[in-house]
Amino acid sequence: MKSVAILLSGCGVFDGAEIHESVLTMLNVEKMGAKYQCFAPDLEQMHVINHLTGEVDAGATRNVLVEAARIARGAIQPLAAFDPAEFDALLVPGGFGMAKNLCDFAVAGQDCRVPDSVVNPLKAFAATGKPAGYACIAPALLSQVYGEGIQLTIGNDPETASALQAMGAVHMDCAVDDIVVDEQHNVVTTPAYMLAGSISEAAAGIERWVEAVLTR
Amino acid sequence: MKSVAILLSGCGVFDGAEIHESVLTMLNVEKMGAKYQCFAPDLEQMHVINHLTGEVDAGATRNVLVEAARIARGAIQPLAAFDPAEFDALLVPGGFGMAKNLCDFAVAGQDCRVPDSVVNPLKAFAATGKPAGYACIAPALLSQVYGEGIQLTIGNDPETASALQAMGAVHMDCAVDDIVVDEQHNVVTTPAYMLAGSISEAAAGIERWVEAVLTR
Repeated sequence: MKSVAILLSGCGVFDGAEIHESVLTMLNVEKMGAKYQCFAPDLEQMHVINHLTGEVDAGATRNVLVEAARIARGAIQPLAAFDPAEFDALLVPGGFGMAKNLCDFAVAGQDCRVPDSVVNPLKAFAATGKPAGYACIAPALLSQVYGEGIQLTIGNDPETASALQAMGAVHMDCAVDDIVVDEQHNVVTTPAYMLAGSISEAAAGIERWVEAVLTR
Repeated sequence: MKSVAILLSGCGVFDGAEIHESVLTMLNVEKMGAKYQCFAPDLEQMHVINHLTGEVDAGATRNVLVEAARIARGAIQPLAAFDPAEFDALLVPGGFGMAKNLCDFAVAGQDCRVPDSVVNPLKAFAATGKPAGYACIAPALLSQVYGEGIQLTIGNDPETASALQAMGAVHMDCAVDDIVVDEQHNVVTTPAYMLAGSISEAAAGIERWVEAVLTR
């Protein structure tokens, strides 16, 4: 049975991991006959967003690992404990937490920086050559993990795509139910809620994405 | 196109709505060709649980509606705005939030009380005779909504089942991928994570449960 690491960035689309994408990722891993282990970095969130109003909850603080544990039903480990040798594949669903907590792409754009505590484990996994999947806005991390020339998609938003291009990635437009495969780096990306207008649209792309990663 | 109300109780299995059950409910509603609108009561949570440690986060407060908005990606309305006339069916996924925030079953057991702000909208929906589904621990609300004699399941836990029986319900043991239908009251229940050991086990029961409610 294949073993898959899933990297989460909190719990909630506007300040953490996108919940639908995360759950659909877990579901499709099991549908493929594999098992998963969730990870998240032990970092403070950039901020807390009230998801009812869309406003920043001034003064509130939450921890990425503690909040991600909600999606994982408590079964989660700190990213610092991630050992690439123990896993056959890595899946990284999106949500603004990827661009706010695991790097600062949401505010810095092409000048985005990824903290060592995040980029080093991802680079260690990349060095194994095993297949990885990044969905939604998570591909913003990829040029700093795999280097320039990495082929990816975040859907078709011109501004986001050109920021990723400026960081050295090769962006390809992609439909919501489709994937982009970088054969050389063994990386699969899909737009998910960068384009999806409903959970079933997101589910179509994520099913294809998980299947592509787990059959590589 | 059928329109379905989904009632949430926060965001996270230990103090709110069970996230997997909630997302799988949304997914299966759309798979059935229907659309959904999420609701949650505008109440303070009983407490906040750190889902990494399982401990109460002493002094922390969170609002049920604000946290449920995370699962709904912001597209949620207060339960006070719920008009049964606008919906063809009602689905209530579980999580401890159902037994801690929407009633006090988690601490009071058979002496459980449901606040008027929760029970009145549910009774108003029941009075329409339209189909409703309650999953996991959410059936703890049912005897106070539909009255004594309501047939339901919470799986096969003897202690929980006998507490529900003492409240006037008729409990029937049920497998994780199965449902219990009360034909008279037009109510369908399924154990979900009261029994499920994995997301795919939960998904099997929830798919059948949503299909049963939406084809009644």
